[in-house]
Amino acid sequence: MTDRIDRLRSGLEQPLLVTDETNVRYLCGFESSNCALFVEQDRVRLFTDFRYFEAASAVDGVEAVMTKRNLVRELADTLSGRIAFERVLAYGLYEVLRDGGLDLVPTSGAVERLRAVKDEGELDQIRTACRITDRVFERLTEVPFVGRTEREVSWDLSQLFHEEGGEGLAFESIVGAGPTGARPHARAGDRTIVAGELVVVDAGTTVDGYASDYTRTFATGPLDGEAQEAYETVLRAQQAALDGLHAGLSGVDADALARSVIDESAFSGKLGHGLGHGLGLDVHEAPRLSTESPDVLAPGNVVTVEPGIYLEGRFGIRIEDDVVVTQDGIENLTGFRKDLVTVS
Amino acid sequence: MTDRIDRLRSGLEQPLLVTDETNVRYLCGFESSNCALFVEQDRVRLFTDFRYFEAASAVDGVEAVMTKRNLVRELADTLSGRIAFERVLAYGLYEVLRDGGLDLVPTSGAVERLRAVKDEGELDQIRTACRITDRVFERLTEVPFVGRTEREVSWDLSQLFHEEGGEGLAFESIVGAGPTGARPHARAGDRTIVAGELVVVDAGTTVDGYASDYTRTFATGPLDGEAQEAYETVLRAQQAALDGLHAGLSGVDADALARSVIDESAFSGKLGHGLGHGLGLDVHEAPRLSTESPDVLAPGNVVTVEPGIYLEGRFGIRIEDDVVVTQDGIENLTGFRKDLVTVS
Repeated sequence: MTDRIDRLRSGLEQPLLVTDETNVRYLCGFESSNCALFVEQDRVRLFTDFRYFEAASAVDGVEAVMTKRNLVRELADTLSGRIAFERVLAYGLYEVLRDGGLDLVPTSGAVERLRAVKDEGELDQIRTACRITDRVFERLTEVPFVGRTEREVSWDLSQLFHEEGGEGLAFESIVGAGPTGARPHARAGDRTIVAGELVVVDAGTTVDGYASDYTRTFATGPLDGEAQEAYETVLRAQQAALDGLHAGLSGVDADALARSVIDESAFSGKLGHGLGHGLGLDVHEAPRLSTESPDVLAPGNVVTVEPGIYLEGRFGIRIEDDVVVTQDGIENLTGFRKDLVTVS
Repeated sequence: MTDRIDRLRSGLEQPLLVTDETNVRYLCGFESSNCALFVEQDRVRLFTDFRYFEAASAVDGVEAVMTKRNLVRELADTLSGRIAFERVLAYGLYEVLRDGGLDLVPTSGAVERLRAVKDEGELDQIRTACRITDRVFERLTEVPFVGRTEREVSWDLSQLFHEEGGEGLAFESIVGAGPTGARPHARAGDRTIVAGELVVVDAGTTVDGYASDYTRTFATGPLDGEAQEAYETVLRAQQAALDGLHAGLSGVDADALARSVIDESAFSGKLGHGLGHGLGLDVHEAPRLSTESPDVLAPGNVVTVEPGIYLEGRFGIRIEDDVVVTQDGIENLTGFRKDLVTVS
């Protein structure tokens, strides 16, 4: 991983204090809830407290430094001069560094830009996570839905991910039946699933920290014409995005590929979120595919493609694949079918 | 919950922008990963984006305001004048508010101080979480340990918490066998547990968001004299703390109750972390019981009491109870036994 630190260094105007835990993990493979990596041109120090120090000492290419639990106060005493810090740092910790006399330069995205472009090792982890998720969704279609609560089906997902070899859940699974599905980020509640409704299932796992993130919407019996039409519309919107994505496209234009299909349908305006997001050590990372995105797609980006239609108080539909952006198009990592599957 | 907002208001010198998600949940019961509560003397506004707006509209006593995903930018445009913000806010979001012309006053702990003192409803949730955790640890002693990996035993914990009615895990369970246990925050790995060693198990669940957090250290067969002595020392240190805790004691003095027992033993200096921490909607919250704590205990605080001894490369021992601080002492919420239990 030392080459990641080298690539980071080549873009730095001054030493960088990396405090984001996931960025530290990406750069040197070290995991802790209390750590900081200080990257200078000729030296890299990994600061952490007693609890994690033994593990830190085993990290290649860095000097491990043991601190008290109040790590930032020690950084303020130890470091000096002009240093860059990450804008995700809490304001209160910024104050501690500032009051320690450091000349602080706020920066954004230095590590996140590296993370957005995956190497082959990272792609392999995400591919493995996707293979596991394919098998889990396949097995989920054989699980009973009707008469059970969203929460019970969510637990089935946890068990299936465990049995299929996932490290754990990439995020708390969403199982949203009927009107719950119309709230795109409702988790799984005590509502009992009934026959003839739509159930949004959004779940994923991690492999060596790298996430998968799938959504499928299942039917629990015959649907009315409008729900069927909405499903077909989401499917067409997603296909348009999958067909049109390629390196060089802006996040805004990527989003428009799917949004335009929905906005030209009877469900205009009902895609209430962005088309997708980068996927890696975080479930939401760069680049963003949305109407507000500042990003441009590059080869090696891994992104979700997840249009949806949400009718408040009635139902939601979302279909989400994970794809790698290539020079000419995409490689779709998602194997599970996306026609409307009826579960019982 | 409106009385929580009223109590917060009475201590405010200017309107407060609450951005910490758990603080928002505490004040108004609303859960979202993208929200802010703006508390003025005569008005409370809850800002959130499309995905959570329907749920926000159902919250009593607040005006729900729908924003774009970039919520803080809209706050910068909408709010004006002198306002307090929480120091946990990311520096980059602080910049957005500052550049919006707001006169910003950093504050800490306004909501956290309220949260540290639990009301009867909150205590009931934590008691329920502890009853579930008692049953889980009881059943865990019947699970096979030897010849299985830490990760497999960790999954057993997940299943037991589910079966006993927990909402989910309060945090990723720790199962640390032998030398793994000497790293207080190692999770659960692929190491196979062998006979005659110590296994640290640190786990908890949530009930309506409120956490339990227990640790017990099990033996997988007869131990040598030093390991037995270390176990007895941790137990005595914990009992000294449970006997000595009461409202009015400082976090530093509370910590010393247990630390002095260990430091007067053959294991002096081997308690490498603080005695405990507040427990509630967060697994780690105010007050802290440690050598660096600025806190003083108050009636209604719920804290963990978790001394340990860690011998690098060999083993770790930790015993952790959850207790309510009262005027004269404590109420121990933890029912599970703490003599050395041998598992097979």
